[in-house]
Amino acid sequence: MRKGGARELSEKGINAKKADDFDDWYTQVILKSELADYSPVSGCLVFRPLAYSIWEQIQQATDSMFKAAGIRNVYFPLLIPERLLRKEQQHVEGFAPEVAWVTETGETKLDERLAIRPTSETIMYESFSKWIRSWRDLPLRLNQWNNVLRWEFKHPTPFLRSREFLWNEGHTVFATREEAEAERDQILGIYKEITEDYLALPGVIGKKTESEKFAGAVASYSIEHLMPDGKAIQGPDFHLDGQNFARAFEISYLDREGKRQFAWQNTFAITTREIGVMVATHSDDRGLVIPPKVAPVQVVIVPIFDVKSRIEVVDAASKLRERLSQIARVHLDDRDYYTPGWKFNEWEMKGIPLRIELGPRDILSKRVVFVRRDSMKKWDVQSDRVEEEVLSTLKDIQQSLYSKAKAFLENNTHAAEDLTELKDVISRMKGFALVHWCESPECEKKIKEETGAKITNMPLNQPEEPGKCVICGRETGTIAYVARSY
Amino acid sequence: MRKGGARELSEKGINAKKADDFDDWYTQVILKSELADYSPVSGCLVFRPLAYSIWEQIQQATDSMFKAAGIRNVYFPLLIPERLLRKEQQHVEGFAPEVAWVTETGETKLDERLAIRPTSETIMYESFSKWIRSWRDLPLRLNQWNNVLRWEFKHPTPFLRSREFLWNEGHTVFATREEAEAERDQILGIYKEITEDYLALPGVIGKKTESEKFAGAVASYSIEHLMPDGKAIQGPDFHLDGQNFARAFEISYLDREGKRQFAWQNTFAITTREIGVMVATHSDDRGLVIPPKVAPVQVVIVPIFDVKSRIEVVDAASKLRERLSQIARVHLDDRDYYTPGWKFNEWEMKGIPLRIELGPRDILSKRVVFVRRDSMKKWDVQSDRVEEEVLSTLKDIQQSLYSKAKAFLENNTHAAEDLTELKDVISRMKGFALVHWCESPECEKKIKEETGAKITNMPLNQPEEPGKCVICGRETGTIAYVARSY
Repeated sequence: MRKGGARELSEKGINAKKADDFDDWYTQVILKSELADYSPVSGCLVFRPLAYSIWEQIQQATDSMFKAAGIRNVYFPLLIPERLLRKEQQHVEGFAPEVAWVTETGETKLDERLAIRPTSETIMYESFSKWIRSWRDLPLRLNQWNNVLRWEFKHPTPFLRSREFLWNEGHTVFATREEAEAERDQILGIYKEITEDYLALPGVIGKKTESEKFAGAVASYSIEHLMPDGKAIQGPDFHLDGQNFARAFEISYLDREGKRQFAWQNTFAITTREIGVMVATHSDDRGLVIPPKVAPVQVVIVPIFDVKSRIEVVDAASKLRERLSQIARVHLDDRDYYTPGWKFNEWEMKGIPLRIELGPRDILSKRVVFVRRDSMKKWDVQSDRVEEEVLSTLKDIQQSLYSKAKAFLENNTHAAEDLTELKDVISRMKGFALVHWCESPECEKKIKEETGAKITNMPLNQPEEPGKCVICGRETGTIAYVARSY
Repeated sequence: MRKGGARELSEKGINAKKADDFDDWYTQVILKSELADYSPVSGCLVFRPLAYSIWEQIQQATDSMFKAAGIRNVYFPLLIPERLLRKEQQHVEGFAPEVAWVTETGETKLDERLAIRPTSETIMYESFSKWIRSWRDLPLRLNQWNNVLRWEFKHPTPFLRSREFLWNEGHTVFATREEAEAERDQILGIYKEITEDYLALPGVIGKKTESEKFAGAVASYSIEHLMPDGKAIQGPDFHLDGQNFARAFEISYLDREGKRQFAWQNTFAITTREIGVMVATHSDDRGLVIPPKVAPVQVVIVPIFDVKSRIEVVDAASKLRERLSQIARVHLDDRDYYTPGWKFNEWEMKGIPLRIELGPRDILSKRVVFVRRDSMKKWDVQSDRVEEEVLSTLKDIQQSLYSKAKAFLENNTHAAEDLTELKDVISRMKGFALVHWCESPECEKKIKEETGAKITNMPLNQPEEPGKCVICGRETGTIAYVARSY
């Protein structure tokens, strides 16, 4: 049996503290847990099995909720002819600076440049315009899970800011504005459930300002998370496109009276960025902490044996795995060329929620040892109570991670009445400031200039009583979240 | 209630015969069933919900078999720097003529061209070389489900020859040649199960010739299907890469004795081409026929009602749907603006395996009407026997489609002893010729020149008795399949 020496463990371990050097810590967690790796193309990430399996959990949960809502999956081409991308003015202005262009194939120069999709409105809506003829063809609620590319020049950060990322892009078409608007709460509700109940990530839900909305949309809505460094980051979003694209792409239908009408459209997305927010929020100086609901392995069994007891212990551990595989995603680490200590470190680094240790003495006394990853609490469990204890522990870890993150969000959200208070919240206290805002672009700009923070979004539930704009002091009924942001 | 007029139905119907004009028929089936659509980029297809949901069935079934075999999913970047693509000589020669190149991003010219992946060996193996250090890191068995682009200039055909397609690409690394070679039968076994048991597509499994093998591989294996027009088409494949890429990318490990060794690699894939083969094989002049195991909807319930009976019939149909949803993927078509006749046509066009009709008289007599899509057979079923009959009918359709396709393959495979017989099989009888071949490139070339057909592959089970090469007459122990091919 091979000893995991102290030197190797320290190389494998994380040597930055989350509290002291967040950026270095974040990068080390991702690389050393083997969640992801850099690639030869700057800003494009390699999703190793651990990251990809978390994405599969997110995707499957979201996808089944979409399907239950009547949304169907499609796949549209990766490449978009330049003339299509240019059809909606605001849209192309928003995306053209970040487009990767295909100009040659084989030895041949193309007549027209082809964009790698930064998003698929323009190529999808060309087809929608052909497919939709009558009110009977509506609603059309489609979605695709794919890769998109946005060649940003800001400093790339794994998951949080990547040039290529994976996402869902929902694209729906309705006959009426009312139906289109009614979809908003359904989709934001799905994203809320995924972020809160699966990823254990709280967030503030609200409407983006005019200057921050999606290129081509009438109104954008987002879930904004708060990162441990006190900066906000945009999570899943939903856009009411009104009839903007419908007019540009001639998506119209004959209504029941035989009159031609333009359709109403929405788009929405959740991306692999959520993996980065999840890592940053829950993990610690030992490495990753993955919420049980999205963990590819929820329980790892580490048998503790020597040459003499190997067969007996691995046999008991296999039986335990068999039992537990009925109720959880379980892995038995029976490699005999690593010590138990080495394995403990590895699975802690990889963030597996629950470890069960099992040795010869445990078999005699009909018990096993539980160690939960989030709190590192260790306790004995009687063998006949293992299933029950696994289920309740996984549930408790899930809830506990969420509660901790929720408390962090609440403790780092402060009302600010004027610019002095706002500056204090943003610079000294960090996190979200909740302010009244008169909705003028001037005051929004001034917030940015004076604090380096921006309005992330405006809560869906606005207060009944008016207040005074944090900048100009005018009376306003609107409150907004302000934060430095990624 | 709206009448589906004769004019509209005939526009919607297929006006080419599979037996007379296969190409026209194939295109009409795909477009009119709303399986897929053309896109503004030539050779790139839009997968509409019906096609994509079939792909999801294929993907999920394959993926769960991969996972059970211990293969894990990853995601590598879409873009590959040119210098990486050029690392393995044969590989780049095979793919460079078909590569789509990104040369500009936003307003900036790139210093180095980036290839859109035609396949991911070169970008994945750059990482493998970093990740693999010791025998403990092996085997490494990874897979990704993604989109790839090959800018072919041959005539594109939906699904069968597309510039962009979806696939799995499995990439595995082993310590020894024996382990690598042992993976072949496991993976080909999975692909055989998917093609035969899910898609109801028989095929001949065998080894590709030297001239037809994958660019960079040591040996390639394929499942070759026979299309209704008598031409062969390559299905899923598996490649033994030996140590070719391992040497080019320095993928090596320290063995148990501390000696550095190059690793052994394999790759394998199944693509969205299978959807095209499935369409071509099973469908008929009414439209699509989808095997139940990959059909997104297996049973469609069409209630037959007038204004008076509507509530009662739809209520009974809903209850039936509820019952059947426990055992099958079922859809209730209760739209009241189409006639039953219109709906029958639509679901026949879309290839849904089983239709259940239910009207007021059926409710009284406690029965429903079954119509199976493959044979169009129609019969009554007692209400209390519906579950049992649905299950046995779906099973029977699945088996019957496979048996029919298998009989077609067998009836169109003929031994040929010499060039005259070979020409007769290829030109007059169509389908596969089974020939002895001396394995010389000269005789392979001559087969192509003289018949327009090529050696598709050599069966894994070779005969015990030798025979004479179909071209040169030399004695040889090798038999091979010859066919015109896509």
